[in-house]
Amino acid sequence: MGKHLTKRSEDYSKWYNELVVKANLAENSAVRGCMVIKPYGYAIWERMQEILDRKFKETGHSNAYFPLFVPKSLFEAEEKNAEGFAKECAIVTHYRLENDPENKGKLRVDTKAKLEEELIVRPTSEAVIWSTYKNWIQSYRDLPILINQWANVVRWEMRTRLFLRTSEFLWQEGHTAHESKNEAIDEAILINDLYADFIQNYLAVPVIKGLKSESEKFAGAIDTYCVEALMQDGKALQAGTSHFLGQNFAKAFDVKYTNKKGKLEYVWATSWGVSTRLMGALIMSHGDDNGLVLPPELAPYQVVIVPIYKTNDEHKMVEKVCNSIKENLIKSGIRVHFDNRDTLKPGFKFNEYELKGVPLRIAIGPRDIKNKIVEIARRDTMTKCSVKQSDVVKFISCELKVIQEDLFKNAQNFQKQNTVEVDNFEEFKKVIDNTGGFVYAHWDGTPQTEKIIKEKTKATIRCIPIISNDKSGFCVYSGKPSSRRVLFAKAY
Amino acid sequence: MGKHLTKRSEDYSKWYNELVVKANLAENSAVRGCMVIKPYGYAIWERMQEILDRKFKETGHSNAYFPLFVPKSLFEAEEKNAEGFAKECAIVTHYRLENDPENKGKLRVDTKAKLEEELIVRPTSEAVIWSTYKNWIQSYRDLPILINQWANVVRWEMRTRLFLRTSEFLWQEGHTAHESKNEAIDEAILINDLYADFIQNYLAVPVIKGLKSESEKFAGAIDTYCVEALMQDGKALQAGTSHFLGQNFAKAFDVKYTNKKGKLEYVWATSWGVSTRLMGALIMSHGDDNGLVLPPELAPYQVVIVPIYKTNDEHKMVEKVCNSIKENLIKSGIRVHFDNRDTLKPGFKFNEYELKGVPLRIAIGPRDIKNKIVEIARRDTMTKCSVKQSDVVKFISCELKVIQEDLFKNAQNFQKQNTVEVDNFEEFKKVIDNTGGFVYAHWDGTPQTEKIIKEKTKATIRCIPIISNDKSGFCVYSGKPSSRRVLFAKAY
Repeated sequence: MGKHLTKRSEDYSKWYNELVVKANLAENSAVRGCMVIKPYGYAIWERMQEILDRKFKETGHSNAYFPLFVPKSLFEAEEKNAEGFAKECAIVTHYRLENDPENKGKLRVDTKAKLEEELIVRPTSEAVIWSTYKNWIQSYRDLPILINQWANVVRWEMRTRLFLRTSEFLWQEGHTAHESKNEAIDEAILINDLYADFIQNYLAVPVIKGLKSESEKFAGAIDTYCVEALMQDGKALQAGTSHFLGQNFAKAFDVKYTNKKGKLEYVWATSWGVSTRLMGALIMSHGDDNGLVLPPELAPYQVVIVPIYKTNDEHKMVEKVCNSIKENLIKSGIRVHFDNRDTLKPGFKFNEYELKGVPLRIAIGPRDIKNKIVEIARRDTMTKCSVKQSDVVKFISCELKVIQEDLFKNAQNFQKQNTVEVDNFEEFKKVIDNTGGFVYAHWDGTPQTEKIIKEKTKATIRCIPIISNDKSGFCVYSGKPSSRRVLFAKAY
Repeated sequence: MGKHLTKRSEDYSKWYNELVVKANLAENSAVRGCMVIKPYGYAIWERMQEILDRKFKETGHSNAYFPLFVPKSLFEAEEKNAEGFAKECAIVTHYRLENDPENKGKLRVDTKAKLEEELIVRPTSEAVIWSTYKNWIQSYRDLPILINQWANVVRWEMRTRLFLRTSEFLWQEGHTAHESKNEAIDEAILINDLYADFIQNYLAVPVIKGLKSESEKFAGAIDTYCVEALMQDGKALQAGTSHFLGQNFAKAFDVKYTNKKGKLEYVWATSWGVSTRLMGALIMSHGDDNGLVLPPELAPYQVVIVPIYKTNDEHKMVEKVCNSIKENLIKSGIRVHFDNRDTLKPGFKFNEYELKGVPLRIAIGPRDIKNKIVEIARRDTMTKCSVKQSDVVKFISCELKVIQEDLFKNAQNFQKQNTVEVDNFEEFKKVIDNTGGFVYAHWDGTPQTEKIIKEKTKATIRCIPIISNDKSGFCVYSGKPSSRRVLFAKAY
């Protein structure tokens, strides 16, 4: 199992693809570009959903559900948004199949059942939601609307990779409506901060918060806030985005409200989302050559117990202690799995749980029982120690916190070590080509320069960071004046 | 609000449609036949999901996610299943839009981007899942597979009604794979029982468990187990189904496993689901002329607190007591909402929460504070009483249980009063045409008779009940021998 995994240093991309499949997270399906999320992978996604959903509700948001399909006439109403997604749309044109008279037992599209208006499978839901909000909003009393939905979306991608870029993916999308510009901007920032906290505290992945450049922002937005993470191969991954949409959608769908002074005004909007792409960030931030490494906060099982025995009598004796430890851990709110399958050897199980990234492994054999100890192994450091049976719960509660913190610290150190400031283009190209990583450089602010840099190096502006102690300088490419550095990297 | 609702006795169907919209549960969308589930409606669905999801996990099932699209060649593999859904499929034929040169700012389907094989938007996922299981199953060690998914599905219905029949709906679909026929049948029954328990104990809706007749069973199943409920207008509603699929899908997708004796055998299957249709069952079982009546187990808010005041000083005084009661209720795990909006009058709020079916309403005014009491109103009985402030938590905890039980008992009484045994066809027609309800009658077991009865009365066989103390008799239509009665009704 673990030992058959390609090493990261050999081929990082191959390592990732193999790990996703071998750790039972996801696999490609019979449908081009669409994935099957397997139970173990889905259990991690469910943990993410549960935590995010609680955070959304704590900040006043409610869930709702809007249709999967967007009629073409609604889809094209906000022109920039439509233009941004038009080239990757799955389009429903018919609503019935019929028997194929030339192929017995086969079906074909019934050409008589053609839709009057084509339906787009939602790539994002601004259009269908704002056409609905139009009927919900008359006065300032109807605002704000703070709604989120958990849904599937479809973007017909040409090159797909499990979790990172798939034609169908799962996500949450928030869509809010506000009285004023500032209130909407505050909402977009609130959510971007919420994403950053979630990703740092639960995924244990450090992120840089920033604003997208004009050419990288969401189609239809005024400003796109984002959180950017750095993967172990030196490439950046956009982990979440939160858009200030201004009045673009309100104008496209004619959504006005009567303000407190009795005057009609267009409504202000935000939208924001994170997706199953976060699974990719998680895997690529912490995984190692033995497989997945899960932060305890997101691990479906935080602890696995593996019994060691030869005879039936030993099995019974060990099983009893394992069960008792399991019960004590459950009582303390720890997610634990006792793997008592007797068709598999302990070594096989050790490999399996290493591959699956379970944070802690308890092994108990007859000698341990005699000595009233257990062996506990940490997945992240691959170190083992002996712990008194009476101390197990306390030790594990503490160790899970330590692992969560260590994973974040390590990822943070990695990010620091792979972040540089660069002031000339030769150096810029060298860093991007060789080591990769985050590169802070001055930029003259024009899309032209951004485009040339991308063409010459494949690096893009990941964001204009929110926090900056930076002084003015000169663009790394054009030499023109620049007020501050921006963050460049090659990206997923 | 409530007073503008059409009375059930006037027009039950109109009452339902108005209630769904006015109670903010759902509304029709811009997309033909697709609904928007609004936050209040969705919160009820989330409660259902939470409880069902826990029950599925307690019985050993895991969640996963399979693609939205089914390639046509997979879709048609199981012929009966394909035939059953072919006439209501949304079909994706293209994957790109382009600018329409004849209409500036408009888009049209890019005819160059035609899919080689059409994709069906899943009406159900057996095909895509069994084409996946084929790769997961080699030996008996890989069985059972016990998987559920929460998903949206699309069935292109011609006549739609909010929650009851919509082109897109939300559901859960379980898909399990087993070594033996009996194990699969046991699973199908286990889930049908789980559905019955859930619907009776949480929705407070009594159900009849049974088997579908050949003509009513799921396309592709050997046997369909079901739970049937009776609505207030005397029509039945199929609330959930659990299918024993035999080896039909295993044969269609060539899914074999090596059994313990080393022999290759086809795998046995089940599938089962409940959907947002349950919202319809909930609304139509308990709702009254004032609006929705929610069982406490599913109510997003079990209690609403409405402050009564005239002056600012009174408001401050009342607010303080309301907040204190709210905190105490939350501490006891009761879901409570304190409606402190000062732009609306108490009477308006009373109507709103009656319409929304909140089980208990607490009203507190200055005089109540002086007397150290609160007024508590029950939504189901529309009765009020005074309760000492010090007893509020205890009283409410108890009352919520009583309401839950009373709703079930009332619905059960209604079902009993509207269930009859009928032995001749004149009587049968009379009952079905006039009072409606559940009709137990003998049936000769042929689809021909079933069809004629349906044509003549619009009643269908809802199920062949699992529990029966019935003796043999003669078919209510044909007079031929019958071993037992079956359950007839007009149905949603």
